[in-house]
Amino acid sequence: MYHKVLVANRGEIAVRIIRVLKELNIRSVAIYSEADVNSLHVKLADEAVCVGGAMPVSSYLNERNILSAAILTGSEAIHPGFGFLSESSEFAQMCAECQIDFIGPRPETIDLMGDKAKARHTMHTHGIPVIPGSIGTVDSLAEARKIADSVGYPVLLKAAAGGGGKGIRRVNSADELAAAFQDARREAKGAFNDSAMYLEKIISPAKHVEVQIFRDQHGQGVYFPERDCSLQRNHQKVLEETPCPVLSAEERQHLGEVALQAATVIDYINTGTVEFLMDQEHHFYFMEMNTRIQVEHPITEMVTGVDLVKTQILVAAGEKLPFAQNDIQLNGYALECRINAEDPKHNFMPSAGHIDYLYLPTGGMGIRIDSGVYSGGEVSPYYDSMIAKFITHGDTRDEAIGRMRRILDELDIEGIKSNRHFQRKLLDDANFLAGKTNNSYIEQYFLKNYLKDHAKEAPSRASLQEKAVR
Amino acid sequence: MYHKVLVANRGEIAVRIIRVLKELNIRSVAIYSEADVNSLHVKLADEAVCVGGAMPVSSYLNERNILSAAILTGSEAIHPGFGFLSESSEFAQMCAECQIDFIGPRPETIDLMGDKAKARHTMHTHGIPVIPGSIGTVDSLAEARKIADSVGYPVLLKAAAGGGGKGIRRVNSADELAAAFQDARREAKGAFNDSAMYLEKIISPAKHVEVQIFRDQHGQGVYFPERDCSLQRNHQKVLEETPCPVLSAEERQHLGEVALQAATVIDYINTGTVEFLMDQEHHFYFMEMNTRIQVEHPITEMVTGVDLVKTQILVAAGEKLPFAQNDIQLNGYALECRINAEDPKHNFMPSAGHIDYLYLPTGGMGIRIDSGVYSGGEVSPYYDSMIAKFITHGDTRDEAIGRMRRILDELDIEGIKSNRHFQRKLLDDANFLAGKTNNSYIEQYFLKNYLKDHAKEAPSRASLQEKAVR
Repeated sequence: MYHKVLVANRGEIAVRIIRVLKELNIRSVAIYSEADVNSLHVKLADEAVCVGGAMPVSSYLNERNILSAAILTGSEAIHPGFGFLSESSEFAQMCAECQIDFIGPRPETIDLMGDKAKARHTMHTHGIPVIPGSIGTVDSLAEARKIADSVGYPVLLKAAAGGGGKGIRRVNSADELAAAFQDARREAKGAFNDSAMYLEKIISPAKHVEVQIFRDQHGQGVYFPERDCSLQRNHQKVLEETPCPVLSAEERQHLGEVALQAATVIDYINTGTVEFLMDQEHHFYFMEMNTRIQVEHPITEMVTGVDLVKTQILVAAGEKLPFAQNDIQLNGYALECRINAEDPKHNFMPSAGHIDYLYLPTGGMGIRIDSGVYSGGEVSPYYDSMIAKFITHGDTRDEAIGRMRRILDELDIEGIKSNRHFQRKLLDDANFLAGKTNNSYIEQYFLKNYLKDHAKEAPSRASLQEKAVR
Repeated sequence: MYHKVLVANRGEIAVRIIRVLKELNIRSVAIYSEADVNSLHVKLADEAVCVGGAMPVSSYLNERNILSAAILTGSEAIHPGFGFLSESSEFAQMCAECQIDFIGPRPETIDLMGDKAKARHTMHTHGIPVIPGSIGTVDSLAEARKIADSVGYPVLLKAAAGGGGKGIRRVNSADELAAAFQDARREAKGAFNDSAMYLEKIISPAKHVEVQIFRDQHGQGVYFPERDCSLQRNHQKVLEETPCPVLSAEERQHLGEVALQAATVIDYINTGTVEFLMDQEHHFYFMEMNTRIQVEHPITEMVTGVDLVKTQILVAAGEKLPFAQNDIQLNGYALECRINAEDPKHNFMPSAGHIDYLYLPTGGMGIRIDSGVYSGGEVSPYYDSMIAKFITHGDTRDEAIGRMRRILDELDIEGIKSNRHFQRKLLDDANFLAGKTNNSYIEQYFLKNYLKDHAKEAPSRASLQEKAVR
């Protein structure tokens, strides 16, 4: 086992990883930017190295400085967390060249799944259902028209080298296709110097359902019960739950087996998540694979008892998975609400700044709060605006929701705005309670009602210290 | 189900009960003393009623004021928590006369188990092993001598009406018996106006092992895996764990069945704990029964997934137990460390006062922190000195201990002293790690070493806000 591991991240996920390292008696090395000198992850780690300025490109994305810090501190492995360098095959390769273990899959795997058209082609080749559309790229308008006619409109044209929403066009009918094809190619060429396109049918309404898998270096693998992450805004997940409330046990097993097969055909090592779209008839389509730990991993930990971050470290060090598929039992329900420093009333504008007071309502059964900040600290304007992940578990979905309502009501944050009230109202929404949500539900329905009906309510409350006795 | 319940307690256990009531959508009514106007339980409850002055006798023990508060607020039931009125049969009877449900056993049961000699006699009559000694009272020196000779010295003489350490004498040999018998009777007569005595053999070394049981009003009952609460100081539990690390699965089942039988023969309703002494050959002896929820109940919740406080409320309202014996599966290990505002270096002197800063290290797997205070609040000099219960769970005992070490290291309290460092050192003690402790281990061994070896180390650390970056 490792003696020292560097955590190439910040905030909540860095804190999470450092805590696991402590529990494993492995020395932890934090890296930090000049803006993060007082961050919790720096205070908790055994050692900490400043790797650059506040802007991510000069610190948390600074591959050379991070590797230098790892070498200088004698770290044997690097955990990249999520975001930043976690899906950089180049960084994973650089680690390998420095004889430092990258805690994640092999660089080739990151590459293969990072190219969305290649990933789609690979999965189709191995019999994993993908969204109907082109297998590989579409190289002419005629080919695009033929495929679109066969799968049916509306369709999406997407840049094969794409990312960040560039080179994507929605096409509602045949007469829009020619102009959209030209437009999208031109934009893709400009953005990525590569005009290759692929085409997918639009599945709508659809649920975002994803399956965490784990494979070790000895060929053993397992899947975990699926997560329903349909509640999104601006392509960011807002509230995640497991299991998906509308799936049967048979569908769950089938989906898990498909996801594990997808990982097995590419000899995936360590943990990853296979994301699917599910239509109203419960047909699943491979969307993409995230080759890293995810924000929402704790809900899977709550219903299975498996420590995924700990297992990442064990597997990276060459150990066998300490569990088999039969050991993964689904126990109850779990939810996660992402508590962000943002203002839902003003288009979710980030609300960075000093945290004057923070009361996290830990306590009681089925409650877990993972946070990378502290009372008196700050939410930095340079990075994501996460304050905490609120995670609850219960024997039933209702019990887990009841516990989440309770801790959202108790949360006390002063000095910055948060989405607490927005999340609290979401938990009372009749469609959410019925499991009837999809990946455009918040933007097309809930948000409008929230702004109309609830945002005017004064969500600010007397603080814990000021609250008058009734 | 109830619509409104009054919580006749304060601090951590009141907060715990109020949170469960919220999760059950039951309106909660707090009571508070004039000293507790800013306490967390008052801030969290839906309603709060001041019932008297700071001294417990005028507020939290003021039966009439508490019942008046219940009637005025329309509360249908009262949860007494632990301590205060929780084991007062008189109060339970008064509740019944006011048509208010007392969330606990019947008054007759509280009475029967409150008289230690009667409890001992009842258990012996029904075949539950009790500590060798007199069955019922010893009324003459000759009878005492006969019994002491037959069970073997040393023995304890105890006042039947006893409590608070009054009327107890240790007798090491036959020649000490006559004087001790006279002395103890005189003291008992003075303290309780009742000179009745009983006699028990001293079991030493012994482990304190206890079994939580639950019975409903329909005759169904279950037992839970035992807790080992041997680590005590001054008859107060310091660190509790479940299961007991030296018991076999067969012994566990046997002990559980005996405990449930003890509850069944007295038609016990709601939850309670049967406490046993266990000698080195693993013989068990009934010691007493606590007819209420206990401080250490969360470790049982962590290894079984059962919410004991929630179940108390359901059963008091007449519902059937929502689980059978087969549903109670032992899952992993759990520990609890009681974090108190006290100074181990100065005979554990209470350290009440303003909490200038409090960081409770919630987060990660297997962590639960139940607390009744908050950063900026206070630990009152009028009541117990509990800051928080630190509870950890793991697949193995080592994993649970590793998690506890980690959160003890992260805890940050400013303004008052705590036993954090004492608990932290206890977790490194070789005998504790080997499970080789008994109910006098801390006082006869660990405390001396702690004061000699560790107390001189500076346990004060840089606070979270001040800690310099390395």
